[in-house]
Amino acid sequence: MNYFSSDFKLGILGGGQLGKMLLFDTRKFDIQTYVLDPSNEAPCKIACDKFFKGDLMDFETVYNFGKQVDVLTFEIELVNLAALVKLEEEGLKVYPSPKTLKLIQNKGVQKDFYTEHNIPTASYGRFNNLKSLIVDILDSKTRMPFVWKCTEFGYDGNGVKVIREMADLDELPNVECIAEEMIPFKNELAVIVCRNPSGEIRTYPVVEMEFHPEANQVEYVICPARIDNIVADKARAIALSVSEKFNHVGLLAVEMFQTEDDEIIVNEVAPRPHNSGHYSIEGSYTSQFENHLRAILDLPLGNTDSKVAGIMVNLVGEEGYSGNVVYENIEKILGWNGVTPHIYGKKQTRPFRKMGHVTIVNSDIKEARRIAEDVKNTIRVIA
Amino acid sequence: MNYFSSDFKLGILGGGQLGKMLLFDTRKFDIQTYVLDPSNEAPCKIACDKFFKGDLMDFETVYNFGKQVDVLTFEIELVNLAALVKLEEEGLKVYPSPKTLKLIQNKGVQKDFYTEHNIPTASYGRFNNLKSLIVDILDSKTRMPFVWKCTEFGYDGNGVKVIREMADLDELPNVECIAEEMIPFKNELAVIVCRNPSGEIRTYPVVEMEFHPEANQVEYVICPARIDNIVADKARAIALSVSEKFNHVGLLAVEMFQTEDDEIIVNEVAPRPHNSGHYSIEGSYTSQFENHLRAILDLPLGNTDSKVAGIMVNLVGEEGYSGNVVYENIEKILGWNGVTPHIYGKKQTRPFRKMGHVTIVNSDIKEARRIAEDVKNTIRVIA
Repeated sequence: MNYFSSDFKLGILGGGQLGKMLLFDTRKFDIQTYVLDPSNEAPCKIACDKFFKGDLMDFETVYNFGKQVDVLTFEIELVNLAALVKLEEEGLKVYPSPKTLKLIQNKGVQKDFYTEHNIPTASYGRFNNLKSLIVDILDSKTRMPFVWKCTEFGYDGNGVKVIREMADLDELPNVECIAEEMIPFKNELAVIVCRNPSGEIRTYPVVEMEFHPEANQVEYVICPARIDNIVADKARAIALSVSEKFNHVGLLAVEMFQTEDDEIIVNEVAPRPHNSGHYSIEGSYTSQFENHLRAILDLPLGNTDSKVAGIMVNLVGEEGYSGNVVYENIEKILGWNGVTPHIYGKKQTRPFRKMGHVTIVNSDIKEARRIAEDVKNTIRVIA
Repeated sequence: MNYFSSDFKLGILGGGQLGKMLLFDTRKFDIQTYVLDPSNEAPCKIACDKFFKGDLMDFETVYNFGKQVDVLTFEIELVNLAALVKLEEEGLKVYPSPKTLKLIQNKGVQKDFYTEHNIPTASYGRFNNLKSLIVDILDSKTRMPFVWKCTEFGYDGNGVKVIREMADLDELPNVECIAEEMIPFKNELAVIVCRNPSGEIRTYPVVEMEFHPEANQVEYVICPARIDNIVADKARAIALSVSEKFNHVGLLAVEMFQTEDDEIIVNEVAPRPHNSGHYSIEGSYTSQFENHLRAILDLPLGNTDSKVAGIMVNLVGEEGYSGNVVYENIEKILGWNGVTPHIYGKKQTRPFRKMGHVTIVNSDIKEARRIAEDVKNTIRVIA
């Protein structure tokens, strides 16, 4: 197949920032792209070859879009699965496969998959609705504290809550959910795995999420993780095996916990480019986006090693500000060594909205960490 | 000035591959761009915010385009200078300034500038037309061999010829020209200088053009140049002084010769991102394109150091092939360590047409050079 400056068309479901960053690489290789997104202001609208406005959860819309392209991928999991299944049955290359997506979209199904395949994960119970969960608690089968997760449509922290007492249940939606054992952990880690249809497979180095000591919020994604090599090797091996067991094609971001006794357990996965791999644009020989593209087109995978250490800081809308966005002090951080802001292109900010990220690269990880802290304390997303 | 996700508009004259690579960075920063180019198939057409089809040499077209933007730059020197002068007089920020462009557009004027400012360069004569040059030769004032260069509208080797005997003059166009002393040199070098309106200035490392031993054609651009540090420092110092004397804003690529006795003389300059800096996308902390953007917007300049060694190989149309382009063996080279092809997006190939380039990066420059040779011998641009 000739992908380069040809009539070949790659379809992308979703036109957000992940798609936007993927388009840097389709442009670099001059591969034609069609993008479907519900918003006319999608960050992908510019830089794709053809933009389609439409509902990603609507069968007809997704099916008709898929009929126009040669390979179909997605940058968000919340897409109409039945349409993908039909398109794949009709011979379209859909990567990642809807078979994998089906195992991942529902967190209960995902957890069952880990159990069936002996992938280490926290123990859990599955519940069809809030009532059955409450009954289970009252029967003393599910014990507090635990982590409540809705099984579908959760995104970026939405749909996850720590339940310590009955009152914490008061505001939960009455939906299908899981209750997960709370496991004390030293570190939250992630490994991005890349695999193509021919079975070539590579992992990126282990990254570490550094949390704010009080706010319990990820502040920095750090590559490489500042952990023991033995633990890192274990994390990469588990991530590899997760990707293989899913028979996954494309990127799979595997989020894990390093427990207090240095065991690795899988938290959850995302079948696409991931926030924990954004550092790779500046830090790695091949960015996660380029490797996703290579993988779904069954091209050889690129080197996943790092050129230099990389740290990523998210840019989210400051509390108390809504309206036309202003990146306060961005000029200042641009003057610092190895600092690259990525502005996703959302015109309007609101509290906690993901507006961009900043990558800090340096040959010395300690220096990168010092600059990252300065970046975090300097730039503000206001209106 | 708020550039990021705002109403600010950057105008770019020219929509070729240099503009296309610049747009990666305007997209990354979400800066709005308007592009003017004569071709509806310009590589920039996708990924700019608004595309205008029009003649870059036409006063009205360039002037009217300029009136719609807040800062104006160009990716090709062959633009209507008078329009730029008028726009600048009327208060538009035009970077690089038409004052500088005027000194560079005509190679005779450019040479006079070097002479006036004591910048080392090969000695030369200026001629209004071929006839005056021939008279000068017959008078034994200009002696063969020399390098003939037309003063305007030459591009990429067009408009340059070595004259060894009278017969070599036969096919020259009857245009304004210079005759330059032929200086035997060890190396052809280049330094890219970056300067913003506030006067902040940085140089990229010295790069080396490695020529094919027989064909006298540049085969590899290598960063860093494999030369003595003292010579490299001299080259960077001369390039800095050239940029300062031009009072240049934006990127200035300074091409130089290292003579057999290790003197550095300036060959010519280009006031824009340059082929000799393409390695910087993968090799440098800040690519030449991002630094051009930072410079013309008077933002702080980014680190020009390299993360790893970089080598660039041009992809030009193979002799004997015209038509719909095919990049033969591109899948093969994608499998090698640190190899990134850039496909400019021209659908049609023809002999010697610039279709793309390949960057090879590696922490070991010798390994990069070995892979670069394999790349050169493997990929073919055919139809």
